[in-house]
Amino acid sequence: MNTDNNELSIYALGGMNEIGKNMYAIEYANDILLIDCGNKFPDESLLGIDLIVPDVSYLVDNKEKIRALIVTHGHEDHIGGIPYLLKKLNVPIYATRFTLGLIELKLKEHKLLADTELTEITAASMLNFNKIEVSFFKVTHSIPDCLGIVFKTPEGTIVHTGDFKFDLTPATKEHADLHRIAEIGKEGVLLLLSESTNAERPGSTPSEQMVGKHVEEAFIRAERKVILSTFASNVSRLQQVVEAARKTDRKLALLGRSMVNVVEVAMERGYLEIPEGMLIDQNQINELPPEKVAILCTGSQGEPGAALSRLSTGNFRGVEILAEDTVIFAAGPIPGNERNVTKIVDNLYTIGAKVIYGSGSTSGMHVSGHGYQEDLKWMLTLLKPKYLIPVHGEYRMLHQHRLLAEAVGVEPGNTFIMNNGDVVDIKESVARQTRTIPAGNTYVDGVGVGDVGDIVLRDRKQLSEDGMLVSVLTLSKLDGKLISGPDTISRGFVYNRDAEELLKEVERLITKTVNELQAENKQQWNTIKQAIRKTIGQYLFSQTRRRPMIIPIIIEV
Amino acid sequence: MNTDNNELSIYALGGMNEIGKNMYAIEYANDILLIDCGNKFPDESLLGIDLIVPDVSYLVDNKEKIRALIVTHGHEDHIGGIPYLLKKLNVPIYATRFTLGLIELKLKEHKLLADTELTEITAASMLNFNKIEVSFFKVTHSIPDCLGIVFKTPEGTIVHTGDFKFDLTPATKEHADLHRIAEIGKEGVLLLLSESTNAERPGSTPSEQMVGKHVEEAFIRAERKVILSTFASNVSRLQQVVEAARKTDRKLALLGRSMVNVVEVAMERGYLEIPEGMLIDQNQINELPPEKVAILCTGSQGEPGAALSRLSTGNFRGVEILAEDTVIFAAGPIPGNERNVTKIVDNLYTIGAKVIYGSGSTSGMHVSGHGYQEDLKWMLTLLKPKYLIPVHGEYRMLHQHRLLAEAVGVEPGNTFIMNNGDVVDIKESVARQTRTIPAGNTYVDGVGVGDVGDIVLRDRKQLSEDGMLVSVLTLSKLDGKLISGPDTISRGFVYNRDAEELLKEVERLITKTVNELQAENKQQWNTIKQAIRKTIGQYLFSQTRRRPMIIPIIIEV
Repeated sequence: MNTDNNELSIYALGGMNEIGKNMYAIEYANDILLIDCGNKFPDESLLGIDLIVPDVSYLVDNKEKIRALIVTHGHEDHIGGIPYLLKKLNVPIYATRFTLGLIELKLKEHKLLADTELTEITAASMLNFNKIEVSFFKVTHSIPDCLGIVFKTPEGTIVHTGDFKFDLTPATKEHADLHRIAEIGKEGVLLLLSESTNAERPGSTPSEQMVGKHVEEAFIRAERKVILSTFASNVSRLQQVVEAARKTDRKLALLGRSMVNVVEVAMERGYLEIPEGMLIDQNQINELPPEKVAILCTGSQGEPGAALSRLSTGNFRGVEILAEDTVIFAAGPIPGNERNVTKIVDNLYTIGAKVIYGSGSTSGMHVSGHGYQEDLKWMLTLLKPKYLIPVHGEYRMLHQHRLLAEAVGVEPGNTFIMNNGDVVDIKESVARQTRTIPAGNTYVDGVGVGDVGDIVLRDRKQLSEDGMLVSVLTLSKLDGKLISGPDTISRGFVYNRDAEELLKEVERLITKTVNELQAENKQQWNTIKQAIRKTIGQYLFSQTRRRPMIIPIIIEV
Repeated sequence: MNTDNNELSIYALGGMNEIGKNMYAIEYANDILLIDCGNKFPDESLLGIDLIVPDVSYLVDNKEKIRALIVTHGHEDHIGGIPYLLKKLNVPIYATRFTLGLIELKLKEHKLLADTELTEITAASMLNFNKIEVSFFKVTHSIPDCLGIVFKTPEGTIVHTGDFKFDLTPATKEHADLHRIAEIGKEGVLLLLSESTNAERPGSTPSEQMVGKHVEEAFIRAERKVILSTFASNVSRLQQVVEAARKTDRKLALLGRSMVNVVEVAMERGYLEIPEGMLIDQNQINELPPEKVAILCTGSQGEPGAALSRLSTGNFRGVEILAEDTVIFAAGPIPGNERNVTKIVDNLYTIGAKVIYGSGSTSGMHVSGHGYQEDLKWMLTLLKPKYLIPVHGEYRMLHQHRLLAEAVGVEPGNTFIMNNGDVVDIKESVARQTRTIPAGNTYVDGVGVGDVGDIVLRDRKQLSEDGMLVSVLTLSKLDGKLISGPDTISRGFVYNRDAEELLKEVERLITKTVNELQAENKQQWNTIKQAIRKTIGQYLFSQTRRRPMIIPIIIEV
């Protein structure tokens, strides 16, 4: 696509002006390197949609150039789109040991594992793709084995931070490699892509060890069972829970599919150590005295099908939360999930359980994995980039990130706030944003990928608000006269039995409309349908202030 | 309903285990006194519903006993249900001057003003309803002229706090009458109904003056227009904005219907003072230098149709927000509104405006009107009730309120955590909760009140997630054979043009099903419809993992 083959281009296919669905690309000459391929969850306006993944049609059109997908870490918003990408393009994937473990789980589920080329890398790996040399540096986040990526190109060095925070006292060995980051900065960075999730929050992210301290205190105070829910992938936190269980002499049971899966991957690959004999099966829980049991489970976001939600309503077979048990939400609610979480808290209090919940800053049971303003300034200061593209955030976060960059010395005008599909081109060390490539959302609904578009969603919205009314007319083939019907039924509009008169009047109006048109010899089906929609729409709005979808169906016999 | 006519009963028709829709009742002998009648807004599961109000069928059945509706203050969750109550029952209403002003606006809108008996009261009023003597005390909240209510009955004294916080330095003259509250406590309180909204929050509610200080600083720093959005009914806050405008020599424009209405009521009735000549019309804004203008507008919760939202997208006729203007959200987002608010913040940053937003504790631009834990303990300590019914809150809030009460001396077992409809009966100073009356939600959808029930909502939910598929079959009256159709259309399921083959297969399967049944002589319509729903449901789920609503329609000719 580049008119000049020696130009360097950078763009996002997801992650700009949104949280989630991260996907970025570095293009030089005839080579495209991809960074991450995430998903995101729809907001409530996207009715019935299960998942959103990046629209990769630009990549499909340029598939001969694509050399690799390099993955910074294993969170869903960075790997959840991979199966959908692979169904359209076969791309070799590079990731660390733990990240690969999670990707493999995902590919197994989609039956894509056998056909995909997976390469394990470490922070010390070096890769070459023609003129682009790729190296890495370790960063700290809320999942093990995270990387930042360095792309050395003939035009200069591009750095992508991945998701990160600085934590000088992480709970496990997940230190960021500060010396390596400083060295990269010293060698010179032309352009930095840095994450912006917490760019609005002043100060520094608290250390993960704070959570460990609070978990331990809660375990000591608890006189009966402890049920702790957190993100399965936060292995450092799981390790701290294991520690607390060890110190209070409790056995540990795992509930919820993703908790069981991730713990298995983490133990197999050496990221999580659980003392011999500590893990018990869920059917052993009731055999032990309650003060000897801890449960680690999914559902910290109040997800309706997850373990904690089912436990809170007594719907988890064989395991019960009882009065005086302690339930810990070791994860703050992600915006949008508050109601689901508080509904569970209400249920747990009804049972008589003790509940520790709230945002991390009130409960002490959660810290963010994303750097606050001081963390972002540290990264900018160490790397000293000429240009910044803030990534991973809604507009106000990208905007605040720009202000932070300017405060630590990035020249005003050298920060690009971009949309997905906007391209920054670099030539002779000068960056410019002037053109765009196709980018957008692909909706996943059931097994359909991309088959639900705006029309289907608009219809779902209308149906959801005011329901619908179907009216079937049978017309004579001979003269177009009404020979049967109209037969009218409604769903989601009014309760039919309560609205008999309303529906009778609808049918009378339809008959009248059809007869009038027939008398005027206006018998095109479209004319008839339009007239019915208009007449009935007006009548129903005047009677109910609702606008159900009106569907006339004409049958000719 | 009381078997013994001298029993005292207390119950809620709304406000228990929920936020909003407050309505409480005191019943003694043959007299029922009602406290408040609020509405609440539906969560996203109640598709298409506009409003929820209390189900008042119990009151309709006992209408000869109802003596009065006494209103504590003018917020929607305390007055928003009144028009729907009045459409079923004519009840005399008692409220303070400001509260009455807001009720009158509402009744005018519903054309109920002429037929309603409204009586103005003050904190010094005394009312008598047979054996019940009613008096009041002033409390501080986030709207003027709020009352707590004291009911002296032969069985003992019942107190309802209304919504309250303690603020020793309120911005206007809205001090709580601490001496009167202490006196009531000294005389003896049998049972207290006290609000629980902030029972989870430790400490004391900050003073409203804090907001004034921050508003003033922002006005001084602003170099161009200031646009401030807050709840129109928070007149103390409006007064502080007026002060800030006066000090910085700005004219003030009001945007948004409820802002204009409430300011008018507040000025007319003496709750808000705006210096002569400060108020300007919106079309004068552009005639003044930007540093001489402040705008007070609705939409602090990000409501899509409100003034601020329209300003942020350039859709407010004649008024524009420009680069370097300052926009202040002087209200924290109510849970559930965060996304709407942040979308507006993103838009404003895109314009280049300066934006001050966030929760009150981060921005300094909002304080709660509801007492935190220390405030609730002060009320309990001053009133010394024997029994407590925590009201106005979800379960965990009621639960925390019980713990606070026990900490300051209410006997364990003397706090009743109730559902709407649960009744506490008091006899010889002993309270018991053993029985219930009918209570629940009435949904308002368009002009329909109560006509949308669970079936309609369940249908809307299914329609919203996977859409629907209608299939019309025309059968012969003679032999039940298929003579036309099936004609199949879908909405909100798949985009019909992309799914021709799928729909063709659906029609083939329906034809096959109908023919098979006909051959077996199974021609009842219900049998045919059931078979179609089953066959097509299974087929579509296997192909798409979706479950559209399947509606077979049979026409006989």
